[in-house]
Amino acid sequence: MVGAAFTGAMTPVALSTRSRTVRSSAIRDLLRLTERPDILSLAGGLPAPELLPVDRIAAATADVLAAEGPAALQYGPTEGIAALRATVADRLGNGTAPEGVVITTGSQQALDLVARVLLDPGDVVVVEQPTYLGALGALQWCAPTVVSIAGDHDGLRTDLLADRLAAGLRPKLVYVVTDFANPTGATLADSRRRHLAGLADQFGFVVVEDDPYGALRFRGTTAPPVRAFTERAVTLGTASKVISPGLRVGWLAAPDWLVRPIVVAKQATDLHTAVLNQHLVRALLADGAWFDAHVAALVESYSARAGVLVQALREACGEHFQLSPVDGGMFLWVRPRHPGLAAERLLATAIDAGVAFVPGSAFRHDAVDDGTMRLCFTTVDADGLHEAARRLGAAVGSMTTTV
Amino acid sequence: MVGAAFTGAMTPVALSTRSRTVRSSAIRDLLRLTERPDILSLAGGLPAPELLPVDRIAAATADVLAAEGPAALQYGPTEGIAALRATVADRLGNGTAPEGVVITTGSQQALDLVARVLLDPGDVVVVEQPTYLGALGALQWCAPTVVSIAGDHDGLRTDLLADRLAAGLRPKLVYVVTDFANPTGATLADSRRRHLAGLADQFGFVVVEDDPYGALRFRGTTAPPVRAFTERAVTLGTASKVISPGLRVGWLAAPDWLVRPIVVAKQATDLHTAVLNQHLVRALLADGAWFDAHVAALVESYSARAGVLVQALREACGEHFQLSPVDGGMFLWVRPRHPGLAAERLLATAIDAGVAFVPGSAFRHDAVDDGTMRLCFTTVDADGLHEAARRLGAAVGSMTTTV
Repeated sequence: MVGAAFTGAMTPVALSTRSRTVRSSAIRDLLRLTERPDILSLAGGLPAPELLPVDRIAAATADVLAAEGPAALQYGPTEGIAALRATVADRLGNGTAPEGVVITTGSQQALDLVARVLLDPGDVVVVEQPTYLGALGALQWCAPTVVSIAGDHDGLRTDLLADRLAAGLRPKLVYVVTDFANPTGATLADSRRRHLAGLADQFGFVVVEDDPYGALRFRGTTAPPVRAFTERAVTLGTASKVISPGLRVGWLAAPDWLVRPIVVAKQATDLHTAVLNQHLVRALLADGAWFDAHVAALVESYSARAGVLVQALREACGEHFQLSPVDGGMFLWVRPRHPGLAAERLLATAIDAGVAFVPGSAFRHDAVDDGTMRLCFTTVDADGLHEAARRLGAAVGSMTTTV
Repeated sequence: MVGAAFTGAMTPVALSTRSRTVRSSAIRDLLRLTERPDILSLAGGLPAPELLPVDRIAAATADVLAAEGPAALQYGPTEGIAALRATVADRLGNGTAPEGVVITTGSQQALDLVARVLLDPGDVVVVEQPTYLGALGALQWCAPTVVSIAGDHDGLRTDLLADRLAAGLRPKLVYVVTDFANPTGATLADSRRRHLAGLADQFGFVVVEDDPYGALRFRGTTAPPVRAFTERAVTLGTASKVISPGLRVGWLAAPDWLVRPIVVAKQATDLHTAVLNQHLVRALLADGAWFDAHVAALVESYSARAGVLVQALREACGEHFQLSPVDGGMFLWVRPRHPGLAAERLLATAIDAGVAFVPGSAFRHDAVDDGTMRLCFTTVDADGLHEAARRLGAAVGSMTTTV
């Protein structure tokens, strides 16, 4: 599951230390394996293609180019265009000013920039275990010491973090996915957000709260961001899950003291995010009636598919797996009921049976296979989800009978 | 002229060492000053807005979204879409294979990626003096030891580089802008390209040859790339100067041993470059009849404007300045005839007179003001260029009479 590191042995010029130690993404390598048309893949993390707003973006492009003319194709400000910064600030609420918003080339870049601006080699970074794989990928380039702390269905166990801090741990940065996290689907509880903000102020670290999925809420209400309680938090957001990932438009909201160095770092990285794409995202976000209806359609589809997958898995292999509740987002998190059911070994059998998922080990810094699995329900229809569950059940059955 | 460094003294959490030492771009700070409508700015480096292909891109967007559907808005491969990699490989020629091409978020990102993959702190990087400011910005993040070596109208003085190498200098990377360089307009001579490639093989460094302006040739013929002569060269290119900078689509062509680590680094940085934008650039590059006519129109306009500016400056202040020949690109490089004419001080006077340029010190790693100036002729029309020259002449006149 782990991508090969580069040894540099065969290169005519030695690669940098970081390049020799950074691993390729396991998911990326895996997705290549599961592109076979006979495989029902729950391994991806893509929005449903049939809900990508092709016609709306075609119309918006015509509108933007007519209204903005050459300015939509010219170099733009590193911080992002003013209109999008204002629209994002407005949507983020909680007192966010446009000046505190920086538009990024996807929220992956936001994470890269925050890491660059804060981390020296060896600095301590705390992540939830398991956590978003891309975050580990971005952080690795700054060569930090990564400390994983357990989460549960209410997100990062801030009580365990407090214990570690009391025992002397001094992180520079704590990374959490706040709502319907990738991979677990967990949402950080309101009380833990306040607790985490208090710890950040007490111990002087920055909280990076990544929120790509918050708008995809099936039920319940949204808690305030960590940033509402401290000057030491950065919120990351993106148009990828609610409009289009292919446009590569994300953003961050940061306190003033972090905005300027982040902008300087971004200038060195890619000058600015594509201007046309910023205008497109701005047009769609600012069209409240359309946007709200579009998000409602995503929620309706994903919620229905999540329900189908949960029910089908209960029937096909419920005796083997515990299924986490799915309150939103794109992922179902599955735990084995019996210890010893290795997810990486199951994956090999499952691929033979025509279904794929991502073993939880891919989302752990220590890469330990504890039998957990991430299943993405967004891109397979109801019939496909039934069949995927049946195949997964058959794969588990063949393993548990042969072991 | 030099951006302020961040001291970190006022930040609630300490910034990284790199963030505290990296400077903001002098040009970026300057451009803010010169946005006043009464100033004729030759300080920018932007394509002529009236030649940005707004209608062609509007049509291409409609075509691409109709042909590709949701795939144009979905996540894409980190290396770039296959069709654009093939089109770029074809345009680059010289045996470039599509597998050797990586699509980047502008060529600024290509430089950032190459630096990340090759440079450890303290590694030696050679740049031409003066050189592209954005290159210094990207390289700085890897904390290298930057060594500047003089160039002339035939580009980097490879004889001087050979002397330094013989004396023990061991660079990891040598950066050059090959054609109509920013800021000097110089083009690396064919014989020097071969010499540089030979030195790279002999001493084991990588040549990064940046070529954003090569298509904007007013006269003469194009020399083969350094990459044609060695496995230790990376060519950077971009759609910014020939199609649109606002789309943020660039590319690099690298030998096999560098492609894989660069792709891993890019994945951590922004996952991939915007898919819709890649399709747009591909559509316009692949439409040979349109693209060739478009580039011809750019060349006709820029060539005419360069001619007007050179003639007007000769008339207004030719006794004070030597003007470098302009064979292509976007910039006129100006040297003082008399030592002691400080360009930074002249800029202050020039802004009062209603004209702006960039002092050569902004393009030097040592920031020494040797009186040189970069004048961009692309975004001001003939009347404006005449007036700009008149104002610059008045500014010089007032300085030389008061000194």
